[in-house]
Amino acid sequence: MKKIINDPQDVVTESLHGFAAAHADLLTVRYGPDFVVRADAPVQGKVALVSGGGSGHEPLHGGFVGPGMLDAAVPGPVFTSPTPDAVLAATQAASSGAGVLHVVKNYTGDVLNFETAAELAAAEDIEVRSVVVDDDVAVKDSTYTAGRRGVGGTVLLEKIAGAAAARGDDLAGVADVAERVNANVRSMGMALTPCVVPHSGEPSFELADDEMEIGIGIHGEPGRERVKVEPADRIVAMLLDAVVDDLPYGSGDRVLLFVNGMGGTPLVELYLAYGAARTQLAERGIEVSRSLVGNYITSLEMQGMSITLLKLDDEFEQLWDAPVHTAALRWGV
Amino acid sequence: MKKIINDPQDVVTESLHGFAAAHADLLTVRYGPDFVVRADAPVQGKVALVSGGGSGHEPLHGGFVGPGMLDAAVPGPVFTSPTPDAVLAATQAASSGAGVLHVVKNYTGDVLNFETAAELAAAEDIEVRSVVVDDDVAVKDSTYTAGRRGVGGTVLLEKIAGAAAARGDDLAGVADVAERVNANVRSMGMALTPCVVPHSGEPSFELADDEMEIGIGIHGEPGRERVKVEPADRIVAMLLDAVVDDLPYGSGDRVLLFVNGMGGTPLVELYLAYGAARTQLAERGIEVSRSLVGNYITSLEMQGMSITLLKLDDEFEQLWDAPVHTAALRWGV
Repeated sequence: MKKIINDPQDVVTESLHGFAAAHADLLTVRYGPDFVVRADAPVQGKVALVSGGGSGHEPLHGGFVGPGMLDAAVPGPVFTSPTPDAVLAATQAASSGAGVLHVVKNYTGDVLNFETAAELAAAEDIEVRSVVVDDDVAVKDSTYTAGRRGVGGTVLLEKIAGAAAARGDDLAGVADVAERVNANVRSMGMALTPCVVPHSGEPSFELADDEMEIGIGIHGEPGRERVKVEPADRIVAMLLDAVVDDLPYGSGDRVLLFVNGMGGTPLVELYLAYGAARTQLAERGIEVSRSLVGNYITSLEMQGMSITLLKLDDEFEQLWDAPVHTAALRWGV
Repeated sequence: MKKIINDPQDVVTESLHGFAAAHADLLTVRYGPDFVVRADAPVQGKVALVSGGGSGHEPLHGGFVGPGMLDAAVPGPVFTSPTPDAVLAATQAASSGAGVLHVVKNYTGDVLNFETAAELAAAEDIEVRSVVVDDDVAVKDSTYTAGRRGVGGTVLLEKIAGAAAARGDDLAGVADVAERVNANVRSMGMALTPCVVPHSGEPSFELADDEMEIGIGIHGEPGRERVKVEPADRIVAMLLDAVVDDLPYGSGDRVLLFVNGMGGTPLVELYLAYGAARTQLAERGIEVSRSLVGNYITSLEMQGMSITLLKLDDEFEQLWDAPVHTAALRWGV
């Protein structure tokens, strides 16, 4: 295992120390239990958004804490759900009394622990609604999931629902926006290489030198098929066909096209894939009116990518374009 | 070789197509010769900044084209200098008549080709000044260089000199700011793994499973020493000691601390290293007043990082904080 780390047990906490120091103007990290929270939390009168999950997917979720997006994020150990008490502590810190939306990726541990935290919060008169993101079209059930997994759509949902909260929507309104994003977003990923979880020291799976995994999950869990590596245009077609046919997206739709790197894939490849995806969408009559290209929901150093499509309407475009100030996404401020 | 590409010969051009489509509001890519230019170029009355170099270091330089930073960027083939005619074409497209600053990383091919382009531009009455960035303390001469290599300091210089041009400094003033950044910035890098150049298909060098290269260049060229992998705190100390002792930086200085990923290293490790660097700087009495953490000058999918320190004064801080709107760095707008 080759990593820039000290003791594998300390990776997440030590990384949080650096993250907090680098973005002290924007956020605070509290420890024991660990969570990230907006420096100005709680924001009076505003619905708070709280998300979280296993670490190793950075910048998700801590990199999305700040005005216009999340109020707090709860990082568990690498690829391991945060505990209910950590989610509760983050919920308490973020809550101004206007209600809290939990944004939960659909993994069994995350769903259970956020549910427990929501119950504990309710016992303290904090009103909590939850949205469970399940945008991955690759598999119906998986190693970590009953139902579809939550992947790239989470990033877009946190931005758009965060903007709804920032403009003053109430909890029901913010939850409604979040549910509508989830209903209109689909993703699929692929990997060229595995990643190595620090505390195990072993690759998450094995791939031959000429193989790739199509439909990979963000923890390296298996996808749809293991096939020979193909040219980028074919890889993009495999992902995009599955995504487009699922909702389905059709001619005349306009979409946000999100090409996401798994952590170890260089930008030159992500932009190349984005160009190919755009060409293939144009052939289907689907218009790309917003874009995001980069490493936003990752699997440590895994090489690979995912493609996410979100069907847009005027409101989603306005909310996407609204100002955001976080470590990983920033515009308008 | 596992990459998300089509024909290895087409990687740069196909990636530029995607890049142009994703950021059409901000920039235009022109082909034959290929370069990236601000969508609103030339900006009347403003000194233009033009940079460039081999591809494979993305987001450098195309990702820094936009208001507050570069007016144009010239990407050569992967790890290969752009031709003089490409640099000339970019210089012509960026020039509003107020003069052009060439920002050149100190590699033999880049220096020669930018010099030739500057002479050709002068023959067309475009006034060009050049700054050659040589911030890498690792080695005096190298495979690609007479003198020190230009690495992470380039990113900071392009931001700060770009802000000087945006506030209306004349060519001599912008060049002076750029030279002062170069005089106050130092860097050193390391690698855990090599990268694979698409048209060769072979790793740029070999490293055993327990080895790292200290003082690596951004093309995988050798550094100071090849040693066993050590804990992050020790790796950071090796880089930081070399950097701090070189200028030298001393107690009471305030600095911008830039922890840069080589492309394949996850954010969780970069923030961990940033935290360690910050602690070690505090022990020396050096105050970190600005920060940058992420993948900004890369070597394709290489795993590793570099650490850059820039000694700050009030003017540098103001110029760093000034609005910037590019694909890779954006704030205040």
